[in-house]
Amino acid sequence: MNKGNDTVRQSIQVGVIGLGTVGSGVARILLEQGELLQQRLGVPLRLVRLADLDLERDRGVKIPRKLLTTDAREIIDNPEIDIVAELIGGIHPAKELILSAIAGGKHVVTANKALLAAHGDEIFEAVDKSGVDIGFEASVGGGIPVIRAIREGLSSNAIESIYGIINGTSNYILTKMTDEGKAFNEVLAEAHSAGYAEADPTLDIEGTDSAHKLAILINLAFGMPMDDQSIYTEGITQITPLDIMFAREFGYRIKLLAIAKCSGDEIEARVHPTMLREDLLIARVGGAYNGIALVGDAVGETLFYGKGAGQMPTASAVVGDMVEIARNILKGASGRVPATSFLRSRRTPRRIKPMDQISSLYYLRIMAEDRPGVLSRISGILGHHQISISSVIQKGRRAGQSVPLVMMTQRARERAIQSALKEIDALPMVSGKTLLIRVENGEESRE
Amino acid sequence: MNKGNDTVRQSIQVGVIGLGTVGSGVARILLEQGELLQQRLGVPLRLVRLADLDLERDRGVKIPRKLLTTDAREIIDNPEIDIVAELIGGIHPAKELILSAIAGGKHVVTANKALLAAHGDEIFEAVDKSGVDIGFEASVGGGIPVIRAIREGLSSNAIESIYGIINGTSNYILTKMTDEGKAFNEVLAEAHSAGYAEADPTLDIEGTDSAHKLAILINLAFGMPMDDQSIYTEGITQITPLDIMFAREFGYRIKLLAIAKCSGDEIEARVHPTMLREDLLIARVGGAYNGIALVGDAVGETLFYGKGAGQMPTASAVVGDMVEIARNILKGASGRVPATSFLRSRRTPRRIKPMDQISSLYYLRIMAEDRPGVLSRISGILGHHQISISSVIQKGRRAGQSVPLVMMTQRARERAIQSALKEIDALPMVSGKTLLIRVENGEESRE
Repeated sequence: MNKGNDTVRQSIQVGVIGLGTVGSGVARILLEQGELLQQRLGVPLRLVRLADLDLERDRGVKIPRKLLTTDAREIIDNPEIDIVAELIGGIHPAKELILSAIAGGKHVVTANKALLAAHGDEIFEAVDKSGVDIGFEASVGGGIPVIRAIREGLSSNAIESIYGIINGTSNYILTKMTDEGKAFNEVLAEAHSAGYAEADPTLDIEGTDSAHKLAILINLAFGMPMDDQSIYTEGITQITPLDIMFAREFGYRIKLLAIAKCSGDEIEARVHPTMLREDLLIARVGGAYNGIALVGDAVGETLFYGKGAGQMPTASAVVGDMVEIARNILKGASGRVPATSFLRSRRTPRRIKPMDQISSLYYLRIMAEDRPGVLSRISGILGHHQISISSVIQKGRRAGQSVPLVMMTQRARERAIQSALKEIDALPMVSGKTLLIRVENGEESRE
Repeated sequence: MNKGNDTVRQSIQVGVIGLGTVGSGVARILLEQGELLQQRLGVPLRLVRLADLDLERDRGVKIPRKLLTTDAREIIDNPEIDIVAELIGGIHPAKELILSAIAGGKHVVTANKALLAAHGDEIFEAVDKSGVDIGFEASVGGGIPVIRAIREGLSSNAIESIYGIINGTSNYILTKMTDEGKAFNEVLAEAHSAGYAEADPTLDIEGTDSAHKLAILINLAFGMPMDDQSIYTEGITQITPLDIMFAREFGYRIKLLAIAKCSGDEIEARVHPTMLREDLLIARVGGAYNGIALVGDAVGETLFYGKGAGQMPTASAVVGDMVEIARNILKGASGRVPATSFLRSRRTPRRIKPMDQISSLYYLRIMAEDRPGVLSRISGILGHHQISISSVIQKGRRAGQSVPLVMMTQRARERAIQSALKEIDALPMVSGKTLLIRVENGEESRE
């Protein structure tokens, strides 16, 4: 059955560029689990070269010195190497290294979500032309095999929607705020100390990292090139313990959710804090864990859960991709599954629905003076914009002072809500900007 | 890159044997989603022949009459057909049809868990010899791509343990009992009417169906042939609303759980009602849904969730397997992934730990007379067997009458518990057999 190969391969050779946290984890699996990998693959997956600028750092794994180099080109240009793992992150020189490896006929594995979100289609085109494979399971959801689920496991489905908790740092912060009633800044400081937040957590807490990952998922699930710049993105920095408490009172939890919905030739793509009914399974994805719900037309609701970051979970995905690519090499079957799930020539261009045209349920926390007539004034403005209120909570009454007035709306247009809020926030009895949180009540992954 | 193929294939031909619920769903996807499948595969996946003994039944999908036959051999013997889906279920003649198709060089897709649990290794051996592919994603967890997760997504991991809610009927019953406080028989009757239980639900409620599926998962995850007869199996018929109430009081939920753990050359394999801490995500898998937690040495805890049965979810998995096999055919890469995840020649025989040697936490509901000295007598027996009690609840005191005495133990040996229970149940102040439920407190998929 193996007529594609002129010679029977005795091993597959791997090179790793970037020996940071993930790269060291990859080296550890390759060096310590050789027997297990060979039991699955039939031949050894040999780590033959590793490149990093700093060769002295202790990486918690014993790497033979002779395998190390400071020059990534020694991997890219090594004719013995079949698969190159790019694990340095960032756009440059990662992009150039990947394109150069592909041009040289090497297969590539990467965890680089920022790069794929910004330049994915250019890279996928090069992959197609060169007839090599690219694996990027580690770029979304760490060790969770969700990319494979879209490309293969659910390939008989039209994917209808995606709901992802795909940033561990922000989920850790929101979970801590929920469990311990602490403020955002306090928990962020704790997350730093616990190693759950980067020195500069902006990409995580502002939703940018989630948008990168959502762009990749949309590309695969809906069969269209997608740029993270086209995704409406809002972070979690405005969420207060007060909002979390009100959410619980309504039976909801607040999560930073990456949402994509496909309907005909139009898609919605957005990342923002979202109130989720607490009987949805995805609302229970806590701590630094990730959970990605995929809804398919045949399979219905699915959820994929696991560690979305960290050394070994991410390395698990990188080496898993190497095994997949090695299996293709052994059978002469590279390019067996299109990198983008759909054949690039057969993808469907779809329009991205502008944010002001979406509709949703909304939670509004308005800081308003506690005096007669305020509620009627505010609900009058909402009514004027065709927005119906489903419930109202007003707590901590202090006559004449500013107190939170909390409302849940029925389904309304984003444009209408935004116009109404402009009017409401301009009222003399309203102080500060109203906090809006979108609500998903959906049928996905209900308990 | 496609040198393996002498001619470029213009389409892949599929035949379906068995047009029951799942078969009709498969026909529906193939007939109605042809464009989508071709966008992913590059060529059409053509349904050319369907066999069923009853050709008159309405199947909710319009199947051209000329494709139908009552003779399964017309599919097995048709040289045009590449992939045969066996969807009649049961052992005979499913086994003979599958072996005959394989011997004829056809690839096979099946949802037949009972067959694979009983004769899996014989079938996998035939697959290896013939160089064809077999897909059986639909045999475990319906539409959830968990077989693929083990064979491919988590291939870089040594799988350490499996915790599965893999029978929708029993999970539906337990969820209803929990949510509505109803008795087992009452809910079973409702499940019948709602279509969530078969006319004869024995396989589901006695744990046999879960044992079939666990045998398949163990084979793939631990790399060893496994027979469902070697799995300790206990059903849910003894669980009462009282136990569910006590479980909640302790912070637990009761689930029918399929458990497998691998430690060195020894494995544990068992199916029984299990109390799960309610902050574990898997404890929240409700209704007819399935959830399978896989713990890998690199990835840590993962959970795969979705509909474990039903027409379209199961059909989703069957057609997903057809796409995978078709991709292999197009690249001349059949046999690319070993059916059993590990190469059959490189599997590791492991010993199955006898049930009386496992250790666990235990919930005990003892029906004992409410009079002084009873608790001391019972705890004395437990102490004598080296079993420590972590908490006790006694409710509904009625002097001199039988009332439930509920205990949670610390970790203890199954053998010790069983010996102690024999003594306890023989006490004159104890009426009826004590109900024992094992408790998993584990690190897997914690919220």
